[in-house]
Amino acid sequence: MTDVKDFVPKRQTVNEMIEQMKFTAFNARKLSESIGILEEMIKDKNCIKFLGLSGALVPAGMRKCITEMIKNGWVDILVSTGANITHDLAVSLGGEHYIQCKPEEIDDSELAEKGMSRIYDVLSPDKTSINFEQEIQKILKEIGEGEFSTYELLKKMGEKIEDENSVVGSAAKKQVKIIIPAFFDSILGFQVWMYSQDHKMRIDERKDLDFLINLHYKLKKENRSSGALILGGGVPKNYILQSVIIPEKPHKYAVQITADSPHFGGLSGATLEEAISWGKVNKGSKICCVYCDATIALPIIVSALKERF
Amino acid sequence: MTDVKDFVPKRQTVNEMIEQMKFTAFNARKLSESIGILEEMIKDKNCIKFLGLSGALVPAGMRKCITEMIKNGWVDILVSTGANITHDLAVSLGGEHYIQCKPEEIDDSELAEKGMSRIYDVLSPDKTSINFEQEIQKILKEIGEGEFSTYELLKKMGEKIEDENSVVGSAAKKQVKIIIPAFFDSILGFQVWMYSQDHKMRIDERKDLDFLINLHYKLKKENRSSGALILGGGVPKNYILQSVIIPEKPHKYAVQITADSPHFGGLSGATLEEAISWGKVNKGSKICCVYCDATIALPIIVSALKERF
Amino acid sequence: MTDVKDFVPKRQTVNEMIEQMKFTAFNARKLSESIGILEEMIKDKNCIKFLGLSGALVPAGMRKCITEMIKNGWVDILVSTGANITHDLAVSLGGEHYIQCKPEEIDDSELAEKGMSRIYDVLSPDKTSINFEQEIQKILKEIGEGEFSTYELLKKMGEKIEDENSVVGSAAKKQVKIIIPAFFDSILGFQVWMYSQDHKMRIDERKDLDFLINLHYKLKKENRSSGALILGGGVPKNYILQSVIIPEKPHKYAVQITADSPHFGGLSGATLEEAISWGKVNKGSKICCVYCDATIALPIIVSALKERF
Amino acid sequence: MTDVKDFVPKRQTVNEMIEQMKFTAFNARKLSESIGILEEMIKDKNCIKFLGLSGALVPAGMRKCITEMIKNGWVDILVSTGANITHDLAVSLGGEHYIQCKPEEIDDSELAEKGMSRIYDVLSPDKTSINFEQEIQKILKEIGEGEFSTYELLKKMGEKIEDENSVVGSAAKKQVKIIIPAFFDSILGFQVWMYSQDHKMRIDERKDLDFLINLHYKLKKENRSSGALILGGGVPKNYILQSVIIPEKPHKYAVQITADSPHFGGLSGATLEEAISWGKVNKGSKICCVYCDATIALPIIVSALKERF
Repeated sequence: MTDVKDFVPKRQTVNEMIEQMKFTAFNARKLSESIGILEEMIKDKNCIKFLGLSGALVPAGMRKCITEMIKNGWVDILVSTGANITHDLAVSLGGEHYIQCKPEEIDDSELAEKGMSRIYDVLSPDKTSINFEQEIQKILKEIGEGEFSTYELLKKMGEKIEDENSVVGSAAKKQVKIIIPAFFDSILGFQVWMYSQDHKMRIDERKDLDFLINLHYKLKKENRSSGALILGGGVPKNYILQSVIIPEKPHKYAVQITADSPHFGGLSGATLEEAISWGKVNKGSKICCVYCDATIALPIIVSALKERF
Repeated sequence: MTDVKDFVPKRQTVNEMIEQMKFTAFNARKLSESIGILEEMIKDKNCIKFLGLSGALVPAGMRKCITEMIKNGWVDILVSTGANITHDLAVSLGGEHYIQCKPEEIDDSELAEKGMSRIYDVLSPDKTSINFEQEIQKILKEIGEGEFSTYELLKKMGEKIEDENSVVGSAAKKQVKIIIPAFFDSILGFQVWMYSQDHKMRIDERKDLDFLINLHYKLKKENRSSGALILGGGVPKNYILQSVIIPEKPHKYAVQITADSPHFGGLSGATLEEAISWGKVNKGSKICCVYCDATIALPIIVSALKERF
Repeated sequence: MTDVKDFVPKRQTVNEMIEQMKFTAFNARKLSESIGILEEMIKDKNCIKFLGLSGALVPAGMRKCITEMIKNGWVDILVSTGANITHDLAVSLGGEHYIQCKPEEIDDSELAEKGMSRIYDVLSPDKTSINFEQEIQKILKEIGEGEFSTYELLKKMGEKIEDENSVVGSAAKKQVKIIIPAFFDSILGFQVWMYSQDHKMRIDERKDLDFLINLHYKLKKENRSSGALILGGGVPKNYILQSVIIPEKPHKYAVQITADSPHFGGLSGATLEEAISWGKVNKGSKICCVYCDATIALPIIVSALKERF
Repeated sequence: MTDVKDFVPKRQTVNEMIEQMKFTAFNARKLSESIGILEEMIKDKNCIKFLGLSGALVPAGMRKCITEMIKNGWVDILVSTGANITHDLAVSLGGEHYIQCKPEEIDDSELAEKGMSRIYDVLSPDKTSINFEQEIQKILKEIGEGEFSTYELLKKMGEKIEDENSVVGSAAKKQVKIIIPAFFDSILGFQVWMYSQDHKMRIDERKDLDFLINLHYKLKKENRSSGALILGGGVPKNYILQSVIIPEKPHKYAVQITADSPHFGGLSGATLEEAISWGKVNKGSKICCVYCDATIALPIIVSALKERF
């Protein structure tokens, strides 16, 4: 057991702040501990690294945090909601940017008339969506027809994205697989659905799972490991954790940043301790959960890691 | 504007309590308002009724609340996480029941050794999963091979379930479609994946979306409407709300029961007012969000509705 | 360990619903367990019963729930924020009632101009405050001068309240002590402050503590016990729990209804297990915490208890 | 309206991070906006600055953040729970420090036997309390007898504290008033209560209010202003905001850092917009609320401000 040490506020770098937070308490301490676990995970050459994305991270300005992690080789497999990938592609394909607003001063009916969709305090102009639709249909045509796992389709899309800040583009370049387990639950899914009305394009999500389960069998056989940074909960959290159950190969590292609570019984807010009972992680795994808005925690995490590597 | 009236505590039925709560405040008032909206939705003969399920409702003992709604014709389309459907099938196929526990007295490593998986204060014995796997493989063999939307596969499964309290079984009987947008993100998904290793079974989730978008076009053309009761957030919430965007046919009714908060910017906690800006509902829609654990709200809602119908 | 049993939704009384919830999970189960603990506490003739109030319960229409508990002899000592007592007196002294509103349709600057103060979705008209000020000054004049603990002053006030639904009035009749540990942090405190500008009236909160600590010493000596229903957190929670530390006489029963979370480290959201380490309760105490809006939980609790007694 | 700009993660100072967060969304943006408001408030020579403290900030290692603000002249009046002041004095008077623990690995009954009190993931050894009691009784004897507002008593105590990191000590040196509105709801209150058993010491909290209300009348007359940084909610939040109602002199600046939610109707989580309807702030006031654990937000705020001044 360690003494709490008073945090010294001063001009300091983000990482220096995090080093100090290690000796504080509550979520500051957990944030510091999480970054330590992530550092260890990144250094572990035998570890396959997952990143789980849910919540409107791209409209909130978190895109380069994700891209930076990909570019640095800190992510091998990205599991995401369709929304985040849609938002990334929309911006990369020339869409207008997202706009700040004040939720308490807003009339959502007026917004609807003005062609603005609201994500809490961010607005997404309809133009962005319209442009996205046109451009993505072009890309789909270039890709042609066929049957794809989501990671295969995203790979092909990524190869056509020129924006160097694009999550999908960077992932393609760095051989990072992007899996979207609820693919049709997004505007991107809608576009593929539309395209498939008169083109033979099929999405086979079984293939994504195939890849993942085989990967964990392989890691088990080769005595290698896996770990995850999970931003938010939802399907990406469950998908990343659940995929190790059949191969019985618990993750070695798991960090979650969430604003959900354990005491309502849902998986999004469930503790990583609970995950031990399922064999998703085990007693020896390094696990940590930080209860914090990801817009605060993620920039801190990636900035601190940039100082460490 | 109406005066707040003091709630009179006394021996009373659940619905009498709800009638009183209409004149209180905060979430009691919202709960009462929500039940009023649901009553109106049920009475609306021209309304297609959605139910969204996320969170571990079946292990929490909420199964008959869902089944009751289906049996009464209060649900036309059920959109669910894979987990709830897996849990329902597991019990219907003879699995041991879920067991209460005290999270604060539990060692998750010991649980893992004992073959117990924990969902907050509920335990799921491994036997249940093992039995589920055997039985579901039998059912899949009976179904044979082919390509299915999730609602088609669930229909075929439901026809083979004899348990009258089964969600999947009741849905099949009442022609209620069950859609699982992240199908492979569940133990049921795993079983289909396994089965598909040596059988030609394919899941086509595009077909689910196809059905849904065409439905909303049809409702628009026929001047009919749709509405939803959304328990929790996640993919089911997004899927139900998003599917009206392309046909531009906002839901007429929307009630959400959630323990998530709006002020972290995620979709699960987003207000239904925000949904107006997206055209998912509109100014004239009856909308209400109750911030409450669904294990408390759902039994109240269904019991109160049973008194009203 | 007990099996989870599916809740059966049907026409039923509130208590029948609670009996069923005992076999469910998450907060429904905790709500049921809490009511069981409260029933046991009420039946325990050797137990001094505390009620802690924080949050805007009176404006939310919860007044009669509190009064009913007092009238039934289920409360011996009420520890409250000043606000709840102010609100109770304001209504008892003929103030206009509280009015429902829609937070999302409201402009708070306009409200300020119209003389309406907002409490989430309830409005309090200025008239209520003005009337309260006039009437309370009259009552203070009748009381005269002197030095009072908060429970002594509230007793004297209660004796002058004729409204049979008044919390303060009922408490006076039933010899229930009302303690307001942060007395001057309320409009009632303001009124006493004003009155004291030209009258010799003094509040001695040390005397409240005196009473409480001596009470717990007495309970210890006589081998009697104490218990508490705590609605919300804040000062009332801390005050009720902390007062047993010096006499080293842990509460035998403790139920908390709260919307706060443990994982931010504050006392309001702290688990009752944590309270064991402080000696506020102990291993053998019956403790339970329900994470739920009190506007939903309190009417259920009091209605169910009315059926049991 | 401004475009969202992607946050660039890199080696940077805390303030550089905050400058970037201004162009993001959700709570990162609010945190940045809050620091801007605080900067403006500090620069406003005609502004009296309040700091509200609730939650276990001192045991969490936040003490020097508070002291630093006092030393820099960024606080004129500190309104606190008794607990934070007790914790500060306990450490300053030579108490053993607080110790980190893992809540999930802990048995609170064992802790009680070992003489350790738990505050989420921090332990407070009994020795600290025992030492505190002895030392504080000595100090009280030195102070002697008399009647004190809480700010007068804390001033006298502060003058006897040598520890330069002490909140109470620094406040005394810098003429910062410390007000504890629920004085007897704390271990410090207990000690004064004990001392008063055989010494004539009286606490007069009416005098604290007297000072505050007169201050706001004076600020109004002199056309000066007030502002507040409120950490957590509870009594300190209400006390700071409510004290301007009688003089009708709304605060010009108000920043709240909280983990509470508005949608449960309590004051701790109430929006600062709601405070407009009460005249606690007004339309022209600079207000901002950040939903974040104060252990993360406070070190960031004070470190960033240190860079700006």
